[in-house]
Amino acid sequence: MIDPHLLTRLSEMVGKAHLITDASCLSEYGTDATRLSFMPDAVVFPRDSHEVSQILSLATRHQVPVIPRGAGSGMSGGALPVQGGLVMAMNRLDQILAIDPDNLIARVEPGVITARLQQAVEGLGLFYPPDPASLNISTIGGNVAECAGGLRAVKYGVTRDYVLGLKVVLPTGEILDTGVQTMKGVAGYDLTRLIIGSEGTLAVITAVTLRLIPKPEAKATMIAFFPQVSAAVQTVSDIVRNRIIPTILEFMDRLSINCVREELELPIPTDAGAMLLIEVDGDEALLRRQAETIKAVCLQGGALHFEAAANEEEAEQLWEARRNVSPSLFKLNPHKINEDVVVPRSRMAALVSFLEQMAQEYHLPIASFGHAGDGNIHVNIMLDKEDPEQLDHARIAVHRLFQKVIEFHGTLTGEHGIGITKAPYLEMEIPRPGLDLMVRIKKAFDPEGILNPGKIFS
Amino acid sequence: MIDPHLLTRLSEMVGKAHLITDASCLSEYGTDATRLSFMPDAVVFPRDSHEVSQILSLATRHQVPVIPRGAGSGMSGGALPVQGGLVMAMNRLDQILAIDPDNLIARVEPGVITARLQQAVEGLGLFYPPDPASLNISTIGGNVAECAGGLRAVKYGVTRDYVLGLKVVLPTGEILDTGVQTMKGVAGYDLTRLIIGSEGTLAVITAVTLRLIPKPEAKATMIAFFPQVSAAVQTVSDIVRNRIIPTILEFMDRLSINCVREELELPIPTDAGAMLLIEVDGDEALLRRQAETIKAVCLQGGALHFEAAANEEEAEQLWEARRNVSPSLFKLNPHKINEDVVVPRSRMAALVSFLEQMAQEYHLPIASFGHAGDGNIHVNIMLDKEDPEQLDHARIAVHRLFQKVIEFHGTLTGEHGIGITKAPYLEMEIPRPGLDLMVRIKKAFDPEGILNPGKIFS
Repeated sequence: MIDPHLLTRLSEMVGKAHLITDASCLSEYGTDATRLSFMPDAVVFPRDSHEVSQILSLATRHQVPVIPRGAGSGMSGGALPVQGGLVMAMNRLDQILAIDPDNLIARVEPGVITARLQQAVEGLGLFYPPDPASLNISTIGGNVAECAGGLRAVKYGVTRDYVLGLKVVLPTGEILDTGVQTMKGVAGYDLTRLIIGSEGTLAVITAVTLRLIPKPEAKATMIAFFPQVSAAVQTVSDIVRNRIIPTILEFMDRLSINCVREELELPIPTDAGAMLLIEVDGDEALLRRQAETIKAVCLQGGALHFEAAANEEEAEQLWEARRNVSPSLFKLNPHKINEDVVVPRSRMAALVSFLEQMAQEYHLPIASFGHAGDGNIHVNIMLDKEDPEQLDHARIAVHRLFQKVIEFHGTLTGEHGIGITKAPYLEMEIPRPGLDLMVRIKKAFDPEGILNPGKIFS
Repeated sequence: MIDPHLLTRLSEMVGKAHLITDASCLSEYGTDATRLSFMPDAVVFPRDSHEVSQILSLATRHQVPVIPRGAGSGMSGGALPVQGGLVMAMNRLDQILAIDPDNLIARVEPGVITARLQQAVEGLGLFYPPDPASLNISTIGGNVAECAGGLRAVKYGVTRDYVLGLKVVLPTGEILDTGVQTMKGVAGYDLTRLIIGSEGTLAVITAVTLRLIPKPEAKATMIAFFPQVSAAVQTVSDIVRNRIIPTILEFMDRLSINCVREELELPIPTDAGAMLLIEVDGDEALLRRQAETIKAVCLQGGALHFEAAANEEEAEQLWEARRNVSPSLFKLNPHKINEDVVVPRSRMAALVSFLEQMAQEYHLPIASFGHAGDGNIHVNIMLDKEDPEQLDHARIAVHRLFQKVIEFHGTLTGEHGIGITKAPYLEMEIPRPGLDLMVRIKKAFDPEGILNPGKIFS
């Protein structure tokens, strides 16, 4: 429990209206997209770097945990107050500070919602590519803290690739500008990219300088169904071999296809074992030729059915398959365990086969879909958590999945982060000397260990 | 001086043939592209991670400085043994371990020369874009240590953007694999990008996993001369506004143009105050249209002369202007102080004006050229170092240049690193709390401070 004197100090710092201590209002700030729940002692809403600094200094002096929070849309529990303490909600730092078309740069506060930034820059003919599925609610600060990916990562990269510099506050209260406001820069250690993806454990982000690119002129959307995953994966390689890097290369396995089948008007072949949703963007004339090539490659690769959208409306219909898959899976069972593993693309088919075998072995439906372009597969184990046997089997399946992913030289998480849900498994990927080094780095930032404790390292 | 017993131990570790202690052979390993010179106590040539680990453990126990060295082509003194000690030359780790066209990945040892890797992957229809000017001699390990940029960075980014993972040895001897072998990954802190650009002060790199892309189909080369820098810079913005990101957007100022003028067959207008060398790459049909657009934009922007290469041979002629500039500057004075500052592109013209004023004030020729696309300007102060007044003026000019760059929200170094040459100025860009944090991070990697001491932090 936080000392009441400290709460009084906090209230003086930010104003009474910006501190929540009433137990009935706290629980909202103790959960996120994992649906796990922990109770914070208080929630504070700072206005600027200066207030963030005051709060963190106080917390370090009194060893109070501080948990930075964006929209609470994280998938691995990064914003959960697992040890209680003070949730620092960044909602009030929500200004787009500048969009500079001459230098292709935007400067924003961390509480800006990703979609809002995208709309603002697109209005000026510019483009901010990272597009996590949560973009209508998630914030730039949260995206940076988790190094969010998204559907367009195969062509455009992830959040890390668009952050030039940060303003951050260290747990001890120092305010730092890291990185640069320019396209390039190599002065000193790369604190910017060390903080990106550090899941709110190293510093609190109070401003972000982002790189923008020109908005692509047009896009073209296609869908293809294949008898097996291996044919779909080979087709992805063949598309790239034709010098085409699509913006979107989304994959769905047989079970995922079957879950959305009846909701869609698409003529999905009954024996479809894999789907690819493909989108290319850029110059309009070039796109038309690329779409022709992709069609030929898909058909040569054994596609059972290929369809190209003639217009925006038809494109939306094709997208429906991908958009509906996540909710449709609940037809199979009431609960979901979702892991965002990555393997080299050439191992995708083997991984999906392995998952199908496990599904049979444990009598649990496992649906896989995700980003075929980067080998980032969202594995969904559907279960009834009230059934102890199913829960037990699901946990074993997750463990075996991670073992297989490591055997395939993959990673436990492509874009969701370690947080608390994957912390017990992290040592499978990063042996002790690496984790020990990370803990020493954590200490270099946060000597008292007050910032987001209990995350990443279990 | 290194204890002779330690030298015996080192000789046992790597074999007598792979340790140099003869004073007459050492000096070669004590200099680099800065032409500064320091004498190491010995040079060791390890064969693999295991030997690197043994050497570093020994060095940490006995507090002997170890200085990792690639080709010795660094521009800021990163590989110089400023405190003596043991130079660790990575020449024997020179294998291309794998090129994987299906997963668009290469795995190489640090001693592989950049151009050799590029040729190897291009033979398979793939592309490794980073192209520092030193690419025919510099190594991938050195490129990673300095986060090398290059001419194509405006479109393709820098070394950092192509490194997925590293094998490194910590100064204490632990061997770590950082990052991933896949396109994505966010497990734990981003040690990979923290080590990239750390100038050999945090860990010794023994293998690098690189991301590749498909080789662009074709390219088109153009050159344009403008009356003033401001017109050239505005033209760059206008090209980008037409959704074209050229591969190359090289800039030369009036003095640089005048230095190469008589060596070239190009009809350079007498009143040319700025030159742009422009190259676009990709789909052949698209290129033709982009070249038309670029021509129109240049002429609208007031170009005095515009020329497009009809073929590879003509392209080479256009490139000669840019290639000749660096050696040609020595016509002006026997010595050069070269700084690779970066400013927001919109400040480039103001920076060049400022430099022209300083040149007049101090009676020293200052020639600027570089990467207009990213605002990365190579400022060359030409002087006779034997003349104390010139040297004094040049030093004041460097200091004032850095002040102006910081005032313009730029950075002291876009791609050469801090090393020793810029270490005295680093605090102008990174105030004390940031530098203190970097020193704590250094300590988390290197508790005894044996790895490349005296670099970055002065």
